[in-house]
Amino acid sequence: MTTLDELPIRDDLRGLTPYGAPQKTVRVALNVNENTHPVPEDVADAITASLAQALRTVNRYPDREFHSLRESLAGYLGRGITPEQVWAANGSNEIIQQILQAFGGPGRSVLGFPPTYSMHSILAAGTGTRWVPGRRDAAYAISPATAVAEIAAHRPDIVFFCAPNNPTGTPLSMETVEAAYDATGGIVMVDEAYAEFAAAGTRTALELLPGRPRLIVTRTMSKAFAFAGARVGYLAADPAIADALRLVRLPYHLSALTQAAAIAAIAHADRMLAMVDEIKVQRDRLLTELPRLGYEPLPSASNFVLFGGIENPQRMFEQLLAEDILVRDVGIPNTLRVTAGTEEETSTFLETLGRIGS
Amino acid sequence: MTTLDELPIRDDLRGLTPYGAPQKTVRVALNVNENTHPVPEDVADAITASLAQALRTVNRYPDREFHSLRESLAGYLGRGITPEQVWAANGSNEIIQQILQAFGGPGRSVLGFPPTYSMHSILAAGTGTRWVPGRRDAAYAISPATAVAEIAAHRPDIVFFCAPNNPTGTPLSMETVEAAYDATGGIVMVDEAYAEFAAAGTRTALELLPGRPRLIVTRTMSKAFAFAGARVGYLAADPAIADALRLVRLPYHLSALTQAAAIAAIAHADRMLAMVDEIKVQRDRLLTELPRLGYEPLPSASNFVLFGGIENPQRMFEQLLAEDILVRDVGIPNTLRVTAGTEEETSTFLETLGRIGS
Repeated sequence: MTTLDELPIRDDLRGLTPYGAPQKTVRVALNVNENTHPVPEDVADAITASLAQALRTVNRYPDREFHSLRESLAGYLGRGITPEQVWAANGSNEIIQQILQAFGGPGRSVLGFPPTYSMHSILAAGTGTRWVPGRRDAAYAISPATAVAEIAAHRPDIVFFCAPNNPTGTPLSMETVEAAYDATGGIVMVDEAYAEFAAAGTRTALELLPGRPRLIVTRTMSKAFAFAGARVGYLAADPAIADALRLVRLPYHLSALTQAAAIAAIAHADRMLAMVDEIKVQRDRLLTELPRLGYEPLPSASNFVLFGGIENPQRMFEQLLAEDILVRDVGIPNTLRVTAGTEEETSTFLETLGRIGS
Repeated sequence: MTTLDELPIRDDLRGLTPYGAPQKTVRVALNVNENTHPVPEDVADAITASLAQALRTVNRYPDREFHSLRESLAGYLGRGITPEQVWAANGSNEIIQQILQAFGGPGRSVLGFPPTYSMHSILAAGTGTRWVPGRRDAAYAISPATAVAEIAAHRPDIVFFCAPNNPTGTPLSMETVEAAYDATGGIVMVDEAYAEFAAAGTRTALELLPGRPRLIVTRTMSKAFAFAGARVGYLAADPAIADALRLVRLPYHLSALTQAAAIAAIAHADRMLAMVDEIKVQRDRLLTELPRLGYEPLPSASNFVLFGGIENPQRMFEQLLAEDILVRDVGIPNTLRVTAGTEEETSTFLETLGRIGS
């Protein structure tokens, strides 16, 4: 049998292992921040009807410019955002990869703020972009002054923020984004994958787009739209950003089925956002109940909670898994991360945790 | 309005224009080598049923290893190929990009043989891999001696072949692949996008896989399976090749819908290959009729024909377009490329060409 080491792979890939959380079949999977609510049946029926229609011309290449999908996404985002400002790809990972290909790459660098979404540094490496880890303030916050100081120190070509941050759930102040934008001549990307889970009235970086052509706000349908399996990420930015990404995107990167499914789902945004409200209730329940069990949850504006005060996270992970509950050890000492699931899943998790801890 | 030039894009992207054939709505579109036969209605119904099923769990991330799809593809390829030898992505473009990311990239080179699939050099550029254009023999052939000489001259890390070649339709001798493999310590990729359109009994590079861990054979569902809109490319190779691509692929790159649609289509491979037989009849008709109209078609083992003897290809392109027929000017002097369509489309094309030429 040939081994990977015997193949002429790039030296910088030698010895690496593939990214990816374990995909285990368990009763309660709260490890990868999925929306644990299935798409409602009537919405699924509407999506199926759209897919059946799309299959009639699936022998043809898809609309390379996914005009209708961009219109749908722009309508969903509102705030006067036009279809020309929107771009989409197979998950926000592909969006971020395209941003790095267009504005990063060999000889360029990207500043991120760990602990943060682990794919950011992996995608940087995959595109030959130097990853510069910036420092955060206490409690994982990033003040405007800290962002500006890190940019001044490292002079990155791209700055990545997560609002809220993953895996910590920490909200990001829009003043920080504004200050970072003014401090750099490069691209500023705000990853708002979990934006829909923020408290009502929370500001979004979408508000900052006018007059800031180097600002990119990424979103995903994986979470709020319960569409992780459909792989739809998108961004809003100046139309010139989309022009840049057209130079690096794979032609026809978004299948006709992806486009049809996403458009149909967005047409039912109200239904999907009602589920988001339910998930926020469970998230807030975790934030309330975990301290009663003796743990220390961090503030969260997302669909997950990082909680500290765990003596041995690996042991607790295994104990929960023995009860058919999967959570995530993100490598931050004395913490675990748990997704806010359905009411039933959240109850099961909390009850089991109470039992284990006692 | 911000222009692309005002953004901090990479210097090597400045001044480029996006790849892509025009997407015009015409009566007879024979420009991008699509399968012009829609998926048969009963097959589309079966695919729709699979998609409806997949939507029930679309809130969850898809199977990152697409086990079922790899089983289906391995079964389709036959020849004892196992699921572990198969890998898939969103179109063969993404497959080729992953191959370049794993085995090419900055400081490495890929040898191709223009005129060939234009995405090969674009993907090389997009991954920072130096593109080395090799020379072909007369009539676009590549003899074993020519391949070996080009490899000796350029010492590439990767060698790209197309069998048959696009846009010329030229078949590739398997002796050339064997000789190239023995002449390099690098990767040899044979792009067999149009393999199903070859004459019965034509050898495929799949036969060469045993004992050649550096050989990769890529295929696509876009053509034979009339699935250009669904974006499914795949490869067969040593399992270690898939291990290498796992290091560079985007996690969850293949959506649950893509996986479900592809599996359902492959289950009806017999129906789809019957359409391929019809297309081959039309391809052979083009090869027979074009000389009668005074043109010089090149031999073709694909679903398209490159034909020469055209005084002014641009004028002919425009004349055909005025009749609502779209073909492709691939930039080879005095030629145009036409896809073999349905019997009716082929008739319309030939009749119109006869009228224009007279």
